[in-house]
Amino acid sequence: MNVKRNLTMLCDYYELTMGNGYFKCGLGDRIVYFDVFYRDNPDNGGYAIAAGLEQIIEYIEDLHFTEEDIEFLRSKNCFCEEFLDYLRAFKFTGDIWAIPEGTVVFPGEPLMTVKAPAIEAQFIETYILMMINHQSLIATKASRLTRAAKGRAISEFGSRRAQGADAAMLGARAAYIGGVGSTACTIVDRDHGVPSTGTMAHSWVQMFDTEYDAFKTYCEIYPNNATLLVDTFNVLESGVPNAIKAFNEVLVPKGIKKCAVRIDSGDVTYLTKKVRKMLDEAGFPECKIVISNSLDEYIIRELIRQGAEVDAFGVGERLITAKSDPVFGGVYKVCAIEDENGNIIPKIKISENVGKITTPHFKKLYRLRDRETGKAEADLLCVYDEEVDDTQPIELFDPQHTWKRKTLTNFKAELLQKKIYEDGKLVYKLPTIHEIRRHCEEEIEGMWDEVRRFNNPHNYYVDLSQKLWDIKHDMIAEHRKIK
Amino acid sequence: MNVKRNLTMLCDYYELTMGNGYFKCGLGDRIVYFDVFYRDNPDNGGYAIAAGLEQIIEYIEDLHFTEEDIEFLRSKNCFCEEFLDYLRAFKFTGDIWAIPEGTVVFPGEPLMTVKAPAIEAQFIETYILMMINHQSLIATKASRLTRAAKGRAISEFGSRRAQGADAAMLGARAAYIGGVGSTACTIVDRDHGVPSTGTMAHSWVQMFDTEYDAFKTYCEIYPNNATLLVDTFNVLESGVPNAIKAFNEVLVPKGIKKCAVRIDSGDVTYLTKKVRKMLDEAGFPECKIVISNSLDEYIIRELIRQGAEVDAFGVGERLITAKSDPVFGGVYKVCAIEDENGNIIPKIKISENVGKITTPHFKKLYRLRDRETGKAEADLLCVYDEEVDDTQPIELFDPQHTWKRKTLTNFKAELLQKKIYEDGKLVYKLPTIHEIRRHCEEEIEGMWDEVRRFNNPHNYYVDLSQKLWDIKHDMIAEHRKIK
Repeated sequence: MNVKRNLTMLCDYYELTMGNGYFKCGLGDRIVYFDVFYRDNPDNGGYAIAAGLEQIIEYIEDLHFTEEDIEFLRSKNCFCEEFLDYLRAFKFTGDIWAIPEGTVVFPGEPLMTVKAPAIEAQFIETYILMMINHQSLIATKASRLTRAAKGRAISEFGSRRAQGADAAMLGARAAYIGGVGSTACTIVDRDHGVPSTGTMAHSWVQMFDTEYDAFKTYCEIYPNNATLLVDTFNVLESGVPNAIKAFNEVLVPKGIKKCAVRIDSGDVTYLTKKVRKMLDEAGFPECKIVISNSLDEYIIRELIRQGAEVDAFGVGERLITAKSDPVFGGVYKVCAIEDENGNIIPKIKISENVGKITTPHFKKLYRLRDRETGKAEADLLCVYDEEVDDTQPIELFDPQHTWKRKTLTNFKAELLQKKIYEDGKLVYKLPTIHEIRRHCEEEIEGMWDEVRRFNNPHNYYVDLSQKLWDIKHDMIAEHRKIK
Repeated sequence: MNVKRNLTMLCDYYELTMGNGYFKCGLGDRIVYFDVFYRDNPDNGGYAIAAGLEQIIEYIEDLHFTEEDIEFLRSKNCFCEEFLDYLRAFKFTGDIWAIPEGTVVFPGEPLMTVKAPAIEAQFIETYILMMINHQSLIATKASRLTRAAKGRAISEFGSRRAQGADAAMLGARAAYIGGVGSTACTIVDRDHGVPSTGTMAHSWVQMFDTEYDAFKTYCEIYPNNATLLVDTFNVLESGVPNAIKAFNEVLVPKGIKKCAVRIDSGDVTYLTKKVRKMLDEAGFPECKIVISNSLDEYIIRELIRQGAEVDAFGVGERLITAKSDPVFGGVYKVCAIEDENGNIIPKIKISENVGKITTPHFKKLYRLRDRETGKAEADLLCVYDEEVDDTQPIELFDPQHTWKRKTLTNFKAELLQKKIYEDGKLVYKLPTIHEIRRHCEEEIEGMWDEVRRFNNPHNYYVDLSQKLWDIKHDMIAEHRKIK
């Protein structure tokens, strides 16, 4: 029912010039390994939430070039006919491992690893990064908002300020994964099952001769869903008195106690305390107070600290664009290449910016959890052929300051990446969005408070095995010697 | 060739609850007037660039509910059957006026005015705002970047960090409108005619045994488009010497002088000065230096001020997300309603936040340009039935500080909004994207430098006619009296 666009051509042009180049110089079939990882948590937070995998799978399943695409590429006078022929039959034939959506992740971890012939692996870079970067950004922001709201409901209100239709739709999906409870965007309910909600805009109030008429009419039409927007003229002198009058007139005779008012401007702490008192005194202690208007996790935390009487928050632009830090900087880097004999040769990128040096090799990622508390203690990156034996103590060390060491006992080791594709075939059963959201809740539950806090969170350790550390440091030394 | 999704259901749920409400209480056919306007220029700049109209037209042309949509809406147990029936035949039947894409605009101006039956006018709110907000945001950012680069080329590199596919595609479209010259995103070339370009990633270099092999192979395959990425290992000690060697080996024998190097990390000013010297001394004065890596208009301005030797910039995440100010706060507000006799009744929204008070009435927007210089002097909002006579002097006054007055003589008055829809029929001939881009260039040219500068720009005046000012102030006084 939802027509899908084909987004094969949503690629960076250099993926095609490189593809044509590999094709011409005989490297097209060379098996390469790429990692997706990011370098810093958004908003200086202690963690991020992985998201976007489902849409990457949709993209890969639908990967193909049409004749019109080939024709367009030919018109660029850049690609040889044999390569254009090759693109006619192009599909993904490799393997993909990924950390499931909703999982808590940390900088430097391979959220996804692609093993495929060079042209294929390179080609899917842009779309994979775009999906992971966008949805992980919004899911992480939503997780922060959810924690700030301390159990109060949050609804996603941001479509009108989203950076395009996909930002609105997949942003709302990601927000739900991160803990937001509903969305104002109808299509997200239809296509992703995120509950959509909504009542009235200021224009509803302005359509009637008086604010009271507007409220009364709304209560009559929606007696079971009467959330009245009370700030079109004046919250305390007009909006709330008219709302109370309409509730008394329409809802009370029907015995309905469920109702709400929404405030979209003004000083929230001051107004909500006054409004709560007015509603309580008028006999509507069950009437909820909903707040919107440029909220984010910092403002929500502060409102609650000040004792604002808020039952639910509508969060718009600052969630849907992750306004305070709107870029999730995931990158896609070669970590290994197979030689002609199938030996896996680790690859590294050295950089003048130390933070941009990559961790080489085809890797495995373990999360080590304390068996008693269930809390995550550290993550461990190993070479693909290593196994962590969680029946034995393990010594971990800080990859920067190697004298910082710690021995874990009584822990459980879990591989974080799951196999998604094998030889181009989807081998992963996609969870529902509700399962993903529950998984995210459990993941957050499994982290120590020190990792979850907003300010100066504990730096969760993503350590390297001794073997991987040695390989990385030998490669850096080797490169410095050559130059 | 590009399958279009139908995005009718990309609406805020409250547009449907209000629609059902208007339908039930007999207000559904009432003619209403909505304005789209914004309150502050992004990045504290002096202006914005309007964009997004073409996609709004595509949306309106394709507006319809499928049976599956109706079925979904029925399942929400919120809408009456008669309203669902009405939605089956839903289409837009009203009038729309809009400021053409690429035009310089200012806070408080109606970028678009919709006149339509209440249900229709309310329903299209979310999509219209989303398109104008997103594309105006990116076009404005691109205009700022273009001005900072002082004639040097800028290419849009941001798809991988875009907030979803539409953000990548329409963001690149908007960037081109605002002055950026090309994009890395292939599909934007196919669908919108924005030139796509690209050469190599670090992975190309890593695929070969040596950096030199990688460069030489690339030059052999693309002798006329050899932009070599020189920072995989070390720019000055490895990248540039290897590039020079490859140019000498492959390009020089062919007599090709056009070539380039790209640097994606490190201290740009330091490196480019050194690299320029190395290239010149090696006999490649025509070799261009391209810079990428987290650039924005502030960094570009500073690099140029420091004498960095840069010929072209690749700008990614900070353009495609407008990182420093990622929300264009356009709103959609009722400004008038017709009564049963077709009289246009102005409407106002009063707010505790003074900045949120709207300018009522169905309006006209004039831009007043000096006939001698061609520069814009002020914009003037009038009531729909007023005419500005530009053969006579006109006295303008500041709507906040009414004692500030100025008389314009020898000016030309131009209506900024064009008619787009009449009785639901498209009556506007869409310009090509290249025409829009040229219009934007001319628009910027037509503004005084004081408006265009980055820091503390001159506050361009958007004045109200005496008649409109009187109506607005009478309405505010009336509301304050009632309460």
